[in-house]
Amino acid sequence: MSVGQRPGGRSARVRAAVLTAARDLLVDGYAELTVERIAQAAGVNKTTIYRRWADLEGVLGDLLSEYASEVVPIPDTGNLDTDLEELALLIRRGMTGEPGELITALAAAAPRNPRAAQIVRGFFAERFGLAQAVIDHAVARGELPQGTDAPAAIEVLGAPFFLRLLVVDKPIDEEFARRTAAAAAAALRAGVFSRYLSVQSCEHTVGSPE
Amino acid sequence: MSVGQRPGGRSARVRAAVLTAARDLLVDGYAELTVERIAQAAGVNKTTIYRRWADLEGVLGDLLSEYASEVVPIPDTGNLDTDLEELALLIRRGMTGEPGELITALAAAAPRNPRAAQIVRGFFAERFGLAQAVIDHAVARGELPQGTDAPAAIEVLGAPFFLRLLVVDKPIDEEFARRTAAAAAAALRAGVFSRYLSVQSCEHTVGSPE
Repeated sequence: MSVGQRPGGRSARVRAAVLTAARDLLVDGYAELTVERIAQAAGVNKTTIYRRWADLEGVLGDLLSEYASEVVPIPDTGNLDTDLEELALLIRRGMTGEPGELITALAAAAPRNPRAAQIVRGFFAERFGLAQAVIDHAVARGELPQGTDAPAAIEVLGAPFFLRLLVVDKPIDEEFARRTAAAAAAALRAGVFSRYLSVQSCEHTVGSPE
Repeated sequence: MSVGQRPGGRSARVRAAVLTAARDLLVDGYAELTVERIAQAAGVNKTTIYRRWADLEGVLGDLLSEYASEVVPIPDTGNLDTDLEELALLIRRGMTGEPGELITALAAAAPRNPRAAQIVRGFFAERFGLAQAVIDHAVARGELPQGTDAPAAIEVLGAPFFLRLLVVDKPIDEEFARRTAAAAAAALRAGVFSRYLSVQSCEHTVGSPE
């Protein structure tokens, strides 16, 4: 048996052990988390972790990629307000659970760790990109004007969650999520995200009568 | 002269030298900043810094307190929309300059450093508290209903700046500031921050007829 080679066998087991250990330890928060503790809990050598993930943020980034690969159902209720509210409640669930701890840890590491910065930016870019469907659907239904800046609107929806996660010491509860959704909806309906367009969004004016 | 004691003389000089060095080095960003480099640039011993400020975040917190003590003029143009726009442009100037680097550094340290967390929370609480005057003035003028949740509205105004500072790799330009202000104004005018009240805001219902 010891001569048989199963491709990825040991490697996959080590990864699973390390990610499980990191996940378990993260429950106690990021402040006390170290590569040493993860190695101990996973029953592997510290150098094994450094070789494969380079540093703590590498492990956390790998863990976040597990969440990033989960399929998130984008709300499609047929109405902008309820879609945004559902979306806000989804963001809330994501941020108050384990991914919230991971995002906090990686966002914290980002200013000193370019790889962590890349991971957390990639995660937000991907999630924000998916969420834009909610705006696109409302445009298609005629609830919002053509040319509404979907990325900007989703940023305004997501930003207050991030502020509370990292800075403001207040709960990310359902009431907060609903209010944040209502604020984004009001700004969208008032035309804020179609008045302030980025330069690229003005292309369709080419060829219009002078 | 060497026997004369000037209260705070050497201590004040050391503090000025260390803060100036930290400020100069921070221009190159937080990633490469260390106590060792600050000590070298300030011409003091590393242990002097550790004794007085405990760690790098202690130095940065002291530096931020210099900004926090600056008097910031709160806009009072007589109109909610222009007040919020002026306020957003003020936030933009603060975040894109040196305080932005400091806030990034301290927010990054916060999840692992309770003192850094306290400093950055205190800074935001103080600034957000001042900014609420803009909402209070609008309520006094009758532009917004009594009981509008000013802290919540200011959070929604400030949050997108923070998201761009730490995560979203897009410029914090004047157009962004104006759009963010317009979004907050639209949500306020739509009554979002008077519909979703925190429990404390409901005190005035005590004694109302049943």
